[in-house]
Amino acid sequence: MDKSKGDGIRPLLESEIDHLATGAWVLGTGGGGDPYNNVLNLKKLYRDGCSTDLMDPDALVDDDLVAVVSFQGAPLVGQERLPDPIFAAKAVTVMEDFLGRRFTALMSVEIGGGNGIHPFLCAALLDLPVVDADAMGRAFPDVSKTSFAVMDLTPYPLTVIDVRGNTVIITEGKDWHWMERISRRVVTEMGSTGSTCKAPRTGKEVKAHAILRSVTKALRIGNTVHEARSAHADPIDAILMQENGVLLFKGKITDMNRRTTGGFLRGATRIEGLDEFSSEDMRLEFQNEFSVASRDGELIATVPDLICVLDTASGEAIGTDTLRYGQRVTVIALPSPPIFLTEKGLKHTGPRAFGFDIDFKSCFNRAHA
Amino acid sequence: MDKSKGDGIRPLLESEIDHLATGAWVLGTGGGGDPYNNVLNLKKLYRDGCSTDLMDPDALVDDDLVAVVSFQGAPLVGQERLPDPIFAAKAVTVMEDFLGRRFTALMSVEIGGGNGIHPFLCAALLDLPVVDADAMGRAFPDVSKTSFAVMDLTPYPLTVIDVRGNTVIITEGKDWHWMERISRRVVTEMGSTGSTCKAPRTGKEVKAHAILRSVTKALRIGNTVHEARSAHADPIDAILMQENGVLLFKGKITDMNRRTTGGFLRGATRIEGLDEFSSEDMRLEFQNEFSVASRDGELIATVPDLICVLDTASGEAIGTDTLRYGQRVTVIALPSPPIFLTEKGLKHTGPRAFGFDIDFKSCFNRAHA
Repeated sequence: MDKSKGDGIRPLLESEIDHLATGAWVLGTGGGGDPYNNVLNLKKLYRDGCSTDLMDPDALVDDDLVAVVSFQGAPLVGQERLPDPIFAAKAVTVMEDFLGRRFTALMSVEIGGGNGIHPFLCAALLDLPVVDADAMGRAFPDVSKTSFAVMDLTPYPLTVIDVRGNTVIITEGKDWHWMERISRRVVTEMGSTGSTCKAPRTGKEVKAHAILRSVTKALRIGNTVHEARSAHADPIDAILMQENGVLLFKGKITDMNRRTTGGFLRGATRIEGLDEFSSEDMRLEFQNEFSVASRDGELIATVPDLICVLDTASGEAIGTDTLRYGQRVTVIALPSPPIFLTEKGLKHTGPRAFGFDIDFKSCFNRAHA
Repeated sequence: MDKSKGDGIRPLLESEIDHLATGAWVLGTGGGGDPYNNVLNLKKLYRDGCSTDLMDPDALVDDDLVAVVSFQGAPLVGQERLPDPIFAAKAVTVMEDFLGRRFTALMSVEIGGGNGIHPFLCAALLDLPVVDADAMGRAFPDVSKTSFAVMDLTPYPLTVIDVRGNTVIITEGKDWHWMERISRRVVTEMGSTGSTCKAPRTGKEVKAHAILRSVTKALRIGNTVHEARSAHADPIDAILMQENGVLLFKGKITDMNRRTTGGFLRGATRIEGLDEFSSEDMRLEFQNEFSVASRDGELIATVPDLICVLDTASGEAIGTDTLRYGQRVTVIALPSPPIFLTEKGLKHTGPRAFGFDIDFKSCFNRAHA
C-alpha cells in the first residue's frame, strides 16, 4: 500500500457519511444492523478530529494484510445496546497481536447496514484506510455466505470481543460452518452482540475474491436517494433506474412475526397491496436479512438476489428489526453479485442454505445482467 | 524444576494406574468423568513405551510454568465419545504457542474422576511431569469452583479444542464466571466435549494455592480399596477409617432423573434404605457431581464436602452418568479441602453457588477436622 495517500486513496468526507448509511442500509436487505448508531459514532469521531480514508482495491499490493471486520449478533440487540468504536478497534488490534503483524488496511465483511460503516469506526481510531470492497455485496446472516467462503479461502483465525473485555480467538476451525457455529455461540453468550475481526486476507485475495467497489456503490445509492428527495422526485424509482432493480411490491405491513433465537433475528412479515398491487399480498421471510419473497402465494424472489424493503415515501431502507404494523413499504429486488450465482455460490447463499426446500428464483433476466 | 528427576520426582508405575483411577473416581463425587476410557488410553501409551512422572509440588521453583488441564463437558457424552490423548496434549501445545513459552509441568484442574488421569495422558505425549496437586481436591462442575478462583488469581488465557481441529483461545475474560460461561458454550457447541488448558499457573502460585498432594491421596484411597478387597475386608469401611469419612446411607436406587443441559449433567436420585437404614430414604441432587444429600427429608450434607456414592460390595465409585435403578450403593462423605470452608470459599463452592437456597451443612465436626 502506498502510505503517501497517492493514487487510489481519498478521504471520506463527513458529508458523505449519511449517504453511505442510506446506501448501505438499502444493500443490507433488512440486516447488517441499522446504521443509525454507527453514523452517530462516526460523526462524533470526525468532530473530535478523526478522519478516514477510502482506498481503491487496486491500490493494494499482493502481500498487504487486510482486516475483515464486523459487528456480529442479532440486529434487534444492536438497537438496544449501543456500540462503542473502541471495541470495534480492539478486535483488530487483538488480531494484530495474535498474528505478530500489523494490518495495512481494513474492510467490512458485509457492506449492508451498520456493518458498512463499522470499518470506518475502526479506521478513525487505528489510522488505517478502508478498502472499497466487502465480502457479500449486501448483508447475510453468517460468514459461510461470503465470497471468501465460496472461494474456499482459509476461514481462520477470528477474534470476538465484547464490552466487558471478554476476548476470544478462534485460532483454527474445521471449515466456515464451524467458524460460524462457534463464533455465533460465543457472541450469543456475550448477549448476542460482539465485535469481530474475521480471517485476515492478503491484498491479492481481496483483489481476486472480494466484492469490489461496494462502498462506492453504497455511496452512489445514497446520493441517488438524497438527490431525488431534494428534487421532489421518487427516490425508489431513481434507485431502480440506476441499479437495474425490479419493483416487487407496494403495500402496508399487516402482520409481523419476529423472534431472536440462536443469535439470529428470524421471522416473517405480510404486506397488503396498495396502488397497482391492491388486492394482492406479499409474504417475506427473514433470518436477519430478507431471504424469500412470495406474491399471492407465488415465489417471486429469493436469496442471493437482494430483497430490499424501503419506506415508500422517503426511500430509506427498513430493517427486519424495525419493521412494524402499518408501515407503507415498497419492496424491490437488486441483482446479486455474480459470484453467488455460480453453482458453488448458490450452494452457499441460495434458499437451501437458509433451510428452504426451494431452488433459487431470480426476477432478473441473467442474459442482460 | 530439576530436570534430572532428582528429589521430588518419581515415575508413576503402570501398576498404579488402576489404583489412581479408583481413588480419583471416589474423589470425583460422581463427576469428573468415569476414568475407564482414560485408564485404557494411559495403559496403551505405557505399552507403547511412554512413561510419566509424578512431581512433588515442593520440586517446583517459583517461576516454573504449569499447564492446568482437563476434559470439559458433560460426563455422559464422555462415555459415548472416546477421548483421544493427542487432543488432550494439543490443548497444551496450543497454549504454549500462544504464550511463546514452554511449560515445565502439568497438573489437573480436578483430581476427581477421569480428569485425575487426564494430565498423565498429556504427560506421556509431552514428556512433562505431573505435579502432585489439583485445584479442587475433588471434582466440581465449573472452573469458578477452584482454589485458584477462590484466591482471585487471573482466570485467563484458556484453550479449548475438539477432535475436529476447532481451536479456541479465550485470551481475556472479565472474571472466572465469564471464562466458564464462554468456554462452556464453546464446549457445548463442540458436542459437550472438549480438551482444555486453563489459565497457566506459576510454580509459586501452585505451591501457595493449589490443593497439594491430591494425586497421592487418590493413589492412597485406591490402594486401600484394592487391598481391602484382596483381604476380603469391607473397602468402604477402610476408606472411612483412613480418610476420616462419615457413612451417610446404604440402600438401593429406586429413582433416577437425569438430563444433559447447557453442557452439564443435572438431576436427582432417590435411594431406599437397607440394613441399618431400612425404612429411611435418601435424595441426592447433582450437577455433574453430587451437591446436596437429604435423609428422610432432612438436609445432612452439601458441597463443598465430598458426597460419594460407592458400590456397596466393591467400593468402586459410581458416576452421576452411570447411576441406575436397582444398584446397591453406599453414600459416604469425605471432608472438603479447608480453603473451600472459608467465607470466600463457600461463596464459590457452597450450595448457593449451585442454585440451592440453603446454607452449607457439614456432617464433620470442624473442631476436629
